[in-house]
Amino acid sequence: MAEHPLFRRAALIGIGLIGSSMALAMRQHGLAGEIVCAARSEATRATALRLGLVDAAFATAAEAVAGADLIVLATPIGVFGQIAEEIGPVVEAGAIVTDVGSVKAMVLREVGPHLPLNVHLVPGHPVAGTEHSGPEAGFAELFENRWCILTPPEDGDAAALDKVSRLWSAMGAKVEIMSAQHHDLVLAITSHVPHLIAYNIVGTASDLEAVTQSEVIKYSAGGFRDFTRIAASDPTMWRDIFLNNREAVLEMLGRFVEDLTALQRAIRWGEGDTLFDLFTRTRAIRRSIVDAGQETPAADFGRRVPGSGE
Amino acid sequence: MAEHPLFRRAALIGIGLIGSSMALAMRQHGLAGEIVCAARSEATRATALRLGLVDAAFATAAEAVAGADLIVLATPIGVFGQIAEEIGPVVEAGAIVTDVGSVKAMVLREVGPHLPLNVHLVPGHPVAGTEHSGPEAGFAELFENRWCILTPPEDGDAAALDKVSRLWSAMGAKVEIMSAQHHDLVLAITSHVPHLIAYNIVGTASDLEAVTQSEVIKYSAGGFRDFTRIAASDPTMWRDIFLNNREAVLEMLGRFVEDLTALQRAIRWGEGDTLFDLFTRTRAIRRSIVDAGQETPAADFGRRVPGSGE
Ligand SMILES: NC(=O)c1ccc[n+]([C@@H]2O[C@H](COP(=O)([O-])OP(=O)(O)OC[C@H]3O[C@@H](n4cnc5c(N)ncnc54)[C@H](OP(=O)(O)O)[C@@H]3O)[C@@H](O)[C@H]2O)c1
Ligand SMILES: NC(=O)c1ccc[n+]([C@@H]2O[C@H](COP(=O)([O-])OP(=O)(O)OC[C@H]3O[C@@H](n4cnc5c(N)ncnc54)[C@H](OP(=O)(O)O)[C@@H]3O)[C@@H](O)[C@H]2O)c1
Repeated sequence: MAEHPLFRRAALIGIGLIGSSMALAMRQHGLAGEIVCAARSEATRATALRLGLVDAAFATAAEAVAGADLIVLATPIGVFGQIAEEIGPVVEAGAIVTDVGSVKAMVLREVGPHLPLNVHLVPGHPVAGTEHSGPEAGFAELFENRWCILTPPEDGDAAALDKVSRLWSAMGAKVEIMSAQHHDLVLAITSHVPHLIAYNIVGTASDLEAVTQSEVIKYSAGGFRDFTRIAASDPTMWRDIFLNNREAVLEMLGRFVEDLTALQRAIRWGEGDTLFDLFTRTRAIRRSIVDAGQETPAADFGRRVPGSGE
Repeated sequence: MAEHPLFRRAALIGIGLIGSSMALAMRQHGLAGEIVCAARSEATRATALRLGLVDAAFATAAEAVAGADLIVLATPIGVFGQIAEEIGPVVEAGAIVTDVGSVKAMVLREVGPHLPLNVHLVPGHPVAGTEHSGPEAGFAELFENRWCILTPPEDGDAAALDKVSRLWSAMGAKVEIMSAQHHDLVLAITSHVPHLIAYNIVGTASDLEAVTQSEVIKYSAGGFRDFTRIAASDPTMWRDIFLNNREAVLEMLGRFVEDLTALQRAIRWGEGDTLFDLFTRTRAIRRSIVDAGQETPAADFGRRVPGSGE
């Protein structure tokens, strides 16, 4: 623990994959004097205490935020508004409220109005995760070398933004600041639409009559299984994302479908060059992602490594 | 080397990822007295010899098949017809011709007619691979615990089918036999359409104006990067697959688009239950694939393992 931790008392509202990873990373780097959490279920609170993630666990957000100078909303985004309404009257003057939600314009819209003027809202989104959820899924290194996007309101407090930036940097993340609207557009294409089409193709495959479900499972190594990992992500979290980033998702989905229609035509008319050109262009992007350190270059995600469970 | 290897002399026509993996696996398990290959380019032939994959490497398929009792077509499928035409007049009586192509009805149609009646055609498809290609990408364990589908012609030779089955079993694969038509439908949904939509979304993302390419790369950890791995697969191989499995791909793509349209509507009208139900259903399929041993259960494909390059 540093002599002067960045925050005196951090309250995590929700302690699933992201909340527990933050608790572990904050402890590891001595970023908060005390860490407490709120979770809906008794089981989650017991797990958080058993794993030593927090010093205290409360059933309600209002109890957890008492005395906290940092409050992190880490539940599914669909309940952010309700939580803000609950904590608004009790949050300490000068406290910082941030969040880790995957959609950002809605935070300014639904959380902001419930907070007193002397409380600083700094919405954030760590672009890091796995398909697993719950307090046992977290690990301190989740944010290392990943981006965390902060989307402060235009008239936001500069010192509060700076403190939240330092928090994420200290947990190993690279911080980027942009408008909430732009965030939602960028994430629609890099995350939300990819999840939607993964969920969709897994759904399509499970509804076929000509191909049985057991065949789909047996021969999934041909490409399908990668989609199933993404389509195993938490249903509540993803429902909330699509409901709360509707415009950007529909816009990007429109582009996707337009391009897919062109590919469909190219296949129908046997236009090999069109296919070849696209398939060549897409390889370059993969290389850039590996070069940018956002991906492992190992073949098949390293699955071939002996003992990897295959 | 076993006393009586399964084949006297195996000729691999094409020695990329699949051909080189077969060469390594056949050597490891002593399945052929001698292994030779044909490859178009001098560089590939030199690599195959340097890595000890083969005993001899030829510039033409006709030279390679001389004296071979097993011939494996392991080039992109678009040149199978041309290779069959070339080897038809020189292939030995009693020899078995098989292939590893990702589409099967076209093999019966385009290879079959060029072979003499005393040569046995046993089309095959190992459902295993990575996004890397070329003779240096191969490894002997590629087929272990993976399925290999054989699609013999209706009047095919039973002994030849049995020998090819034993070859794949000996290399660690699990063999399944089905009609070429059914294979092409199953793979359309488990492999071909997933690749098409991965290529497509990577293309869409790289064409946007509102989101820059560098933003797509930076924030790809949200889901997009998994698609880029698939979309980094070999352009020639995949062009040939779509051109040669047109009907089944268009049929499955039609289903996919239909389902996607329904999801689009659900998002537009805020139908959270429809989304939640689908997202719950798709998780079960993931579990079945992991249970069936076709996938690692590690979070994020095990990328979080320290030292994995992240
Ligand atoms: N997972 C990712 O990949 C990822 C990445 C970046 C950002 N995010 C964002 O991070 C947030 C949390 O995601 P996560 O993956 O950590 O979720 P998670 O593992 O499912 O955990 C959610 C937590 O929120 C609590 N919670 C759920 N519903 C609640 C409610 N109605 N009222 C109060 N508490 C409730 C849960 O408590 P109980 O266990 O008691 O129900 C649990 O502690 C989401 O907003 C998501 O958009 C996720
Ligand atoms: N990769 C997979 O994931 C996978 C999985 C299952 C099945 N398959 C099937 O396996 C086959 C080979 O795929 P691969 O991944 O091994 O390919 P690859 O690594 O690209 O290797 C292709 C081989 O074929 C040779 N070749 C290419 N074009 C040729 C031509 N016009 N004439 C003669 N030889 C030619 C190449 O020789 P040069 O190097 O000299 O050009 C190379 O040796 C394909 O039919 C594919 O559908 C692939």
